[in-house]
Amino acid sequence: MNAVCLLSGGMDSTTLAYLAADMGYRILGLHFNYGQRTEGKEHTCARTVASLLNAEEFLEIDLSHLKIIGHSSLTDHTLPVDSYRENREGIPNTYVPFRNANLLAIATSFAEARGAGAIFIGVQAQDYSGYPDCRPAFIEAFQKVIETGTRDGTSIRLLTPFINMTKKDILKEGLRLKVPYEHTWSCYKDQEMACGECGACHFRMAAFSAHGITDPIPYREDK
Amino acid sequence: MNAVCLLSGGMDSTTLAYLAADMGYRILGLHFNYGQRTEGKEHTCARTVASLLNAEEFLEIDLSHLKIIGHSSLTDHTLPVDSYRENREGIPNTYVPFRNANLLAIATSFAEARGAGAIFIGVQAQDYSGYPDCRPAFIEAFQKVIETGTRDGTSIRLLTPFINMTKKDILKEGLRLKVPYEHTWSCYKDQEMACGECGACHFRMAAFSAHGITDPIPYREDK
Repeated sequence: MNAVCLLSGGMDSTTLAYLAADMGYRILGLHFNYGQRTEGKEHTCARTVASLLNAEEFLEIDLSHLKIIGHSSLTDHTLPVDSYRENREGIPNTYVPFRNANLLAIATSFAEARGAGAIFIGVQAQDYSGYPDCRPAFIEAFQKVIETGTRDGTSIRLLTPFINMTKKDILKEGLRLKVPYEHTWSCYKDQEMACGECGACHFRMAAFSAHGITDPIPYREDK
Repeated sequence: MNAVCLLSGGMDSTTLAYLAADMGYRILGLHFNYGQRTEGKEHTCARTVASLLNAEEFLEIDLSHLKIIGHSSLTDHTLPVDSYRENREGIPNTYVPFRNANLLAIATSFAEARGAGAIFIGVQAQDYSGYPDCRPAFIEAFQKVIETGTRDGTSIRLLTPFINMTKKDILKEGLRLKVPYEHTWSCYKDQEMACGECGACHFRMAAFSAHGITDPIPYREDK
């Protein structure tokens, strides 16, 4: 059976695509460009992973209207990216309003048109502590939208096996699946050397450190 | 208060935008190009209506990825457009998989980013007899997605006052609101002269005929 796998180029979605393939799904890769700062690197990683997994299809979608709508430091390059802080209040400014609903709507159109039976999205606990569109309640509500908004007889399961896992748990799963983490990128800010300061770098570095292994991607030397 | 109004250029969404303005909302117009056959005409109509209503903003979004995903005669110009048939079985081939969820996801991002309190979408009964993403159950499910997937404290109401109305009822409301129907377009197939044969023309002609008034747009002479 085919499954649409959202491939951002990051650790979570890459690990999830390897898990989907391990479960026997044929992969329909889906990557989004919404004007995020590190898109060049993310795109290369996502495409490489789709190729390594012999994806049936790899679709790249331009969502630059999310940049036009604005309100996020990921897409508005005049805003500085929030650094990770332990006791930060509120949602970091990297939040793109209702982004995941936009991604899942396209994923569902793609799945319905291709007759795929599942959509895999790598949302996880440490994200939904900040981002509303990573919450389990949001995912459950979206499953209901899929059921009511697609042709009768369509069955598409929205699968988020990492939603209650930590980055450390996800990395453990990825090590079992032999995920090539050198072809993943997490940093929100830079794409030559990871900054080591943003929220995405913080969680990634902590996960590798917890397993006592070296992250294969380059970090800025002063980190 | 601001409201995002989806403006397709058709009768229903135009009438709805006039109703929203009549209710006191300031209009944030949102128009989509997803590679539909009559986009040139629809775009002109939507822009004109936004201007006539003194919209605060008019945002045009390119959704040509729906064309890439395919599976609809609206966007795949090699497929003939289904004609209207009284006892048609199944969904007409003008159905674009999960289209309205894509439109509403962007509308919600726009509303959240601008602090708008409502989204108006002109879905109505004669549509949802065929299209799954026009059903009341779909709209209710999407409202729940908005509530769970936006920042806490956000309140965006998804308003579909026409959902249980016929085209005739909508036109009656539009006549009361003095909607300039010469700046609307419904035909799925052509943009110089309406074809008079597709489902959209069928319902439009029947509504004008039921009120005993002349539709101000041009139809092909043989109709």
